Amino acid sequence: MEKVNLKEKFSLFTTHYEPKIAGELNGQLVKLVKFKGEFVWHHHDNEDELFYVVKGSFDMHLENKVVTVKEGEFIIIPRGVEHKPVANEEVQVMLFEPASTLNTGNIENEITQRELQRI
Amino acid sequence: MEKVNLKEKFSLFTTHYEPKIAGELNGQLVKLVKFKGEFVWHHHDNEDELFYVVKGSFDMHLENKVVTVKEGEFIIIPRGVEHKPVANEEVQVMLFEPASTLNTGNIENEITQRELQRI
Repeated sequence: MEKVNLKEKFSLFTTHYEPKIAGELNGQLVKLVKFKGEFVWHHHDNEDELFYVVKGSFDMHLENKVVTVKEGEFIIIPRGVEHKPVANEEVQVMLFEPASTLNTGNIENEITQRELQRI
Repeated sequence: MEKVNLKEKFSLFTTHYEPKIAGELNGQLVKLVKFKGEFVWHHHDNEDELFYVVKGSFDMHLENKVVTVKEGEFIIIPRGVEHKPVANEEVQVMLFEPASTLNTGNIENEITQRELQRI
């Protein structure tokens, strides 16, 4: 049973929008991801998703508003809600979501990640 | 759908070992808690528990070792594992755990919290 240091884990990768698995509990995964640029609009039919900003900030686009999520803040996106992260600068994010969650939700394209690396 | 600012939420209470609910997703709760002093040895029969340190540090006592968890680090305690948090100085912790989780696990005494405040 070892602790996980986020700074150390984030130093292990440089890619954007490719979540890595950093922990697992109760059928949920803790994922670490760097955002930069604009993601795709999508939703998750069966999973709520938590985004916690470890470093930096990003804009979560929702159908009727944009929420800027900054360091030390989190936002929960309930299942079914369309959303699109946009990061002008690189941001480090910790995700907490069910193991079944696909990064692009209902959309499948070249940025869909099926096999996530564990770090 | 609003974001949650941890610093702001932690400013709302001063008590120790009394978790507050700051978010809910997929049957799991995000709880914020301040530790100071020594908690009780306990385990959770059916729940894994994640402790993420937002500010400060604490010692997680386990049966055969002590893990010091510092700011920006988390530790996952699997179900069934005896543990006891000890904080020499006040520490701010974010917990991820199933809604069913009782703070004192298999132990029930005067510090058991059954009705958690939402903040």
